[in-house]
Amino acid sequence: MGSAKIAEGKTKIVRPYREGYALLEFKDDITAGDGARHDVLPGKGVLNAQTSAYLFRVLEGKGISTHYVGMYDERTMIVKYLKMIPVEVVLRNIATGSVVKRLPINEGERFDPPIIEFFLKDDSRHDPMLNYHHMEHLKLMTRKEAERVEEIMYGVNDALFPLLKSKGLILYDFKLEFGRLGDELVVGDEITLDSMRVREEGTGRILDKDLYRKGADLETVRKAYEEFYRRLTS
Amino acid sequence: MGSAKIAEGKTKIVRPYREGYALLEFKDDITAGDGARHDVLPGKGVLNAQTSAYLFRVLEGKGISTHYVGMYDERTMIVKYLKMIPVEVVLRNIATGSVVKRLPINEGERFDPPIIEFFLKDDSRHDPMLNYHHMEHLKLMTRKEAERVEEIMYGVNDALFPLLKSKGLILYDFKLEFGRLGDELVVGDEITLDSMRVREEGTGRILDKDLYRKGADLETVRKAYEEFYRRLTS
Repeated sequence: MGSAKIAEGKTKIVRPYREGYALLEFKDDITAGDGARHDVLPGKGVLNAQTSAYLFRVLEGKGISTHYVGMYDERTMIVKYLKMIPVEVVLRNIATGSVVKRLPINEGERFDPPIIEFFLKDDSRHDPMLNYHHMEHLKLMTRKEAERVEEIMYGVNDALFPLLKSKGLILYDFKLEFGRLGDELVVGDEITLDSMRVREEGTGRILDKDLYRKGADLETVRKAYEEFYRRLTS
Repeated sequence: MGSAKIAEGKTKIVRPYREGYALLEFKDDITAGDGARHDVLPGKGVLNAQTSAYLFRVLEGKGISTHYVGMYDERTMIVKYLKMIPVEVVLRNIATGSVVKRLPINEGERFDPPIIEFFLKDDSRHDPMLNYHHMEHLKLMTRKEAERVEEIMYGVNDALFPLLKSKGLILYDFKLEFGRLGDELVVGDEITLDSMRVREEGTGRILDKDLYRKGADLETVRKAYEEFYRRLTS
């Protein structure tokens, strides 16, 4: 593509497009530990772009606003240009990862209702947790906006959990990022195995980036991402 | 005193008393770093018991329910026996301490409005931060109770900030713990220089436990606690 970059993150590049839009290119990079580990996994960018596009279309079909417009090429989405809020919003159905290290909560414990957490995107501070007061003070989101974001998170879970369940997969948790389009809060960024934890029902087999975090070889990771996309769309 | 203990913490002992009441004895111990540092500071127990009693009476005068009933001896309060919630609730007027390490907030930055944070009392996990969802899941407080606790925190701040200001002192932040008495949420534990940060107006001179945390000698700490009590009650 080679055109100018508006921004480049660890796994994606934002490029200019027509007024009010942008191109979001998914790279083959995979990282963990706030960027401390880093590899290139050929094919990952295409798989994640396709997975994310599929899931954004599912959400749009349920009336949830996302930045997704269409595909520009197989690894690049056309998206609405949002004013992004540098906050990661996590919804957890089943406890795993950081929450079981931080709190007296057991691996595999069910959250009923699901819990939601907000984290500042700040690798140098290891993405600290935020509450409504912090977000107001840091001018990230008002309390009312945070409550609206939580509503949207529950709506996304209500769409994705049963969809994955119907494919024999359990959605443990997922992370979304939001942006503003005028006054509207819109789902931006991506929905992929980099940002969700998905386990096979019954076996508990891991299909998401935890494979990479736990040191699996790259081909195992690539196959899991491919299997997920195949099962999702079959 | 020598009677049985219901519970003993790092700086206080709870003993049985008449039905529905307990005795709260303030020890001379001072600790920091989740108990990693520990000293005995003769006179501290009496000063903290007296300071806390004075401030509980101020709050009761403003219509805020506390567990304070009266004094049993100079270092021991008679209190209503509450079912304590193992959560520390912090209100911050001015940024210092953990919040400036965790978040992109500068030392001395004013919070307007003040911010409130909840932490699980769990030294082994270094008192992790909680949000409403965590507290519901861990059956610590419902969201409605957490919102009521926040209201009470603002009420306490509205009572204590101007009082200290009138003595030439600035209340940077304070921590309270709450308990249940039937359906009512009641301020328990203590309000002392172990649980507040107080600086002299103008000079910024520290009068609270940060002196100890920063390594001041014990006599300096004792004198600061004594000066605070004298200025508060003069």
